Amino acid sequence: MTTPTLSPDFLDTDAVRTAVERVLDDFLDTKSGSPAPPGPPSLSGLLADFLSGGKRIRPLLCVTGWRAVGGTGDPGPVLRVAAGLELFHAFALLHDDVMDDSPVRRGRPTMHRTLAALGAARLTPERIERAGVNGAVLLGDLALLWSDELLHTAGLTPAQLAAVLPPLSAMRTEVMLGQFLDLEATGVLTDDVEATLTVNRYKTATYTVERPLHIGAAVAGAGPAALDALSRYALPLGEAFQLRDDLLGVYGTAESTGKSPLDDLRAGKNTTLTALALRAADRVQDAQLRELLGDPLLDEKQAAIVREIFDATGARETVERMIEDRRQRALHALDTAPFTPDAVAALRRLARLATVRTS
Amino acid sequence: MTTPTLSPDFLDTDAVRTAVERVLDDFLDTKSGSPAPPGPPSLSGLLADFLSGGKRIRPLLCVTGWRAVGGTGDPGPVLRVAAGLELFHAFALLHDDVMDDSPVRRGRPTMHRTLAALGAARLTPERIERAGVNGAVLLGDLALLWSDELLHTAGLTPAQLAAVLPPLSAMRTEVMLGQFLDLEATGVLTDDVEATLTVNRYKTATYTVERPLHIGAAVAGAGPAALDALSRYALPLGEAFQLRDDLLGVYGTAESTGKSPLDDLRAGKNTTLTALALRAADRVQDAQLRELLGDPLLDEKQAAIVREIFDATGARETVERMIEDRRQRALHALDTAPFTPDAVAALRRLARLATVRTS
Repeated sequence: MTTPTLSPDFLDTDAVRTAVERVLDDFLDTKSGSPAPPGPPSLSGLLADFLSGGKRIRPLLCVTGWRAVGGTGDPGPVLRVAAGLELFHAFALLHDDVMDDSPVRRGRPTMHRTLAALGAARLTPERIERAGVNGAVLLGDLALLWSDELLHTAGLTPAQLAAVLPPLSAMRTEVMLGQFLDLEATGVLTDDVEATLTVNRYKTATYTVERPLHIGAAVAGAGPAALDALSRYALPLGEAFQLRDDLLGVYGTAESTGKSPLDDLRAGKNTTLTALALRAADRVQDAQLRELLGDPLLDEKQAAIVREIFDATGARETVERMIEDRRQRALHALDTAPFTPDAVAALRRLARLATVRTS
Repeated sequence: MTTPTLSPDFLDTDAVRTAVERVLDDFLDTKSGSPAPPGPPSLSGLLADFLSGGKRIRPLLCVTGWRAVGGTGDPGPVLRVAAGLELFHAFALLHDDVMDDSPVRRGRPTMHRTLAALGAARLTPERIERAGVNGAVLLGDLALLWSDELLHTAGLTPAQLAAVLPPLSAMRTEVMLGQFLDLEATGVLTDDVEATLTVNRYKTATYTVERPLHIGAAVAGAGPAALDALSRYALPLGEAFQLRDDLLGVYGTAESTGKSPLDDLRAGKNTTLTALALRAADRVQDAQLRELLGDPLLDEKQAAIVREIFDATGARETVERMIEDRRQRALHALDTAPFTPDAVAALRRLARLATVRTS
């Protein structure tokens, strides 16, 4: 295994990405041979394929959190912790895609679809779909277990490990609870904007932004004041991240987001966008939304009708305004934060990456 | 949280079970309120229900492994580690039941069926089944995460944790790989007896017996010689455990096993029993087995035909002989093992529990 290194600019986005990806590649390489029962296709290879093309937002935040509170010296341990977050995220996405029965992820067929196709030659028709789902669930489980292994082989001191475990544990539980809330809400459209923001906070704001920052900061031995300062930046930014995601799910292009702009609408996802639209809709619009959202056969023409209603009710504009408001709050929090200047600059860049993105 | 205690006889089976169950109850109690987003049903309550009625074979082995190599003093940490293994097992079973679409577990509807029924009132028909599957997958994920939390709050010293992690990590990966092998083999009947024994080793022998013993022994600081001695006992016993399971899946009663004796046959599970029968079958028997095994509508009369073939081909008797042979090897390994006498007595009892059981 090669020792991970960073360019002199610790927080150069591309350098961190490259370093994290090298950790992941090396780790999965060690898994490609052993422990090897004969038979299954290369599980580590499937995972490596799945991992390619991610934005690495959580690892970036983790390394930046470490640096922000004064982390210095060998970045090896924090990079391995950061890479573990990416593997954990792979677990969450793999299971998410199964639960939503999503067809496409990062411009490629989702894992359960890929594995179903692999099994098509040797299985009876009724077993094909199940084999895909089962394989993707198992591969997700494996990604979760391996994310743990990365953490435990990260070279942390016992004190560092003890500091990392509480926020990590909280992060992992929160994302599960967020998923449960999401699941509960699926199939029943809601105009309860606050409820969608609650799911947003559990599913994304803490999971994607706050906890990765805290985990990196914990590696550097951050105290409560530094963690609070990170939260003041992280929570509004995390909400903005999810709101941008909601918009991209409806208005994005397949080329940039890697998934069809019909998927979220067909799934009938309850987002802040849909809740705002339902709340502001007149009777005709309300009926149209309830007919079209969640229709698994919704076509591009019908999607255009939904988008028009999102525009006409002002829902889209409101979400854009909410994103901007939250981004400003996040940036404002940095003005008084006790972070290193290079980290503040990096956090500003990440705020942009998270909210102004097109993918 | 109450401090776990054991009766003066450290290895009394019922006392260990009770102590482990108290740890699990206390842990899930701490989860029943927080971290609490509003909404979902009591996830910890669902898990507590699911956990009730288990044999606790892995926790028993874990505590016995600790004691065998000289573990003394406060049993609190090893009991929490042992309870973590039971939560991990809950994760494995929850996902297993989803993958096999099993209807019944421990005499009750499986979790995905239970959750589907809970959702029936508010969901459209096509969403009901999916909601059950998704909920059970998530609850399994949560059980896995919480098993980790139990480990990390077990009160282990850094040295103990460092010793526990490698066998734990290996155990968790192995059971996944065993599941993949199982999955690969599903839907295509095999007469390859060796292949079924390989899956058996990965899926059960190490997972159920060897690794729990090693994990307990690691808490007590066992060296390589002690671990090897445990393996010599554990691996044959673990194979025997799975072979008994295979027989109980076909010849057991619903009252004692908690599941229908038709499930395994309907699923077309490849077991050593089926492989032996296929290998020894004449042309007529072979055709009958291939017609009936894996038929999701197989009835009791057809099951009786399959059982007759298992008997007539000598497959059942061979499996019984294999169990006895392996049990003897496990017991024989104890004759020269450097374990405490009370642990040797407990390991003899556990060998009986694992191989002569009816549930």
